[in-house]
Amino acid sequence: MVNYPNGKKHTTKDLVTTRQKNSKIEYGKRGMSFEEAIDKTNQYYITHQIAVIHKKPTPVQIVKVDYPMRSKAVIKEAYFKTPSTTDYNGIYSGHHIDFEAKETHNKTSFPLQNLHPHQIDHMNQVAAQGGICFLLIHFSHWDDVYLLPFNQLIVYWDRYMKGGRKSITLTEIKNDGILIPYEYLPRLDYLAALNLKRESED
Amino acid sequence: MVNYPNGKKHTTKDLVTTRQKNSKIEYGKRGMSFEEAIDKTNQYYITHQIAVIHKKPTPVQIVKVDYPMRSKAVIKEAYFKTPSTTDYNGIYSGHHIDFEAKETHNKTSFPLQNLHPHQIDHMNQVAAQGGICFLLIHFSHWDDVYLLPFNQLIVYWDRYMKGGRKSITLTEIKNDGILIPYEYLPRLDYLAALNLKRESED
Repeated sequence: MVNYPNGKKHTTKDLVTTRQKNSKIEYGKRGMSFEEAIDKTNQYYITHQIAVIHKKPTPVQIVKVDYPMRSKAVIKEAYFKTPSTTDYNGIYSGHHIDFEAKETHNKTSFPLQNLHPHQIDHMNQVAAQGGICFLLIHFSHWDDVYLLPFNQLIVYWDRYMKGGRKSITLTEIKNDGILIPYEYLPRLDYLAALNLKRESED
Repeated sequence: MVNYPNGKKHTTKDLVTTRQKNSKIEYGKRGMSFEEAIDKTNQYYITHQIAVIHKKPTPVQIVKVDYPMRSKAVIKEAYFKTPSTTDYNGIYSGHHIDFEAKETHNKTSFPLQNLHPHQIDHMNQVAAQGGICFLLIHFSHWDDVYLLPFNQLIVYWDRYMKGGRKSITLTEIKNDGILIPYEYLPRLDYLAALNLKRESED
């Protein structure tokens, strides 16, 4: 263990979270954003025939499109729409997978305002059809990613809806979720974490 | 049967397909487009807890966004991207569902150029994971919609890739697919058609 001039112990965490100019959080150990890490993982899953999971495109309301001569259509006016579902879904050896990925700068809790009520409704509907739903949470300060199964998430959401706390504490997430370990390939093996979680519940 | 002045027999088909000004094909008997009919059906499936199936948003590459004071962000420059997957997916009582919907004005065949090779690749990958994939084809002239399972579609795609015919004939589609009957609710009950098809193959 090396001690640095400021007297604090050096940990890899110190090297990690740096804001980029465009205010994206850099997903430190990998030199990529959280979203990029998920995309890379999904590419790995497809290439290795493990699963077929994609991010849905950002929903956009297109108002005006120009068709310049000899070049492709240009959208000149459009607006962001509120997504009606989660961002990711797909199939993993016969199982329907549906999840949302969220990032927080908070150190000790995940604010539930990060989720839309209709995303919770959507996961409820999918779970009722037998799908596997969960939330991936990136604590950017710690550069840690947790998988929280929907059946745990809904407990905290219901508490919030009934006037209880507006967030899930990191301690609760550590208890009910599972930390996704850092790996080289795939970058963020959330399906392995999911299996581990499911096995531990059997 | 009523004979009309032009000497041709009257059928309901004559009343059906009319072009709208915006060149969308009106999905006649329902007074709605093919896509709207699918959307309505998916809404019905969700409301009645039959399935959770959504259309994916159109993929768009966003280049320039303005943030005017006190109003929401406006996308000022964006381009359409080629979709890397099919348009629709979701879950139906434990089964992962993945399909593409296409319309043709042709009377006697469906041109395979309507599909992108990567959409076929995608359905191949999903089918390998145990998902149920198919194509919905709307013959706008006849206002008939057929469901063609992927395992049949791939036969005709392979024929095309090997230099054979570039389309699937309506006769082939009638043989290998299933006509989705018109109904009031749900508008286009493709899951019922799917069940019928699967039962007939058992």
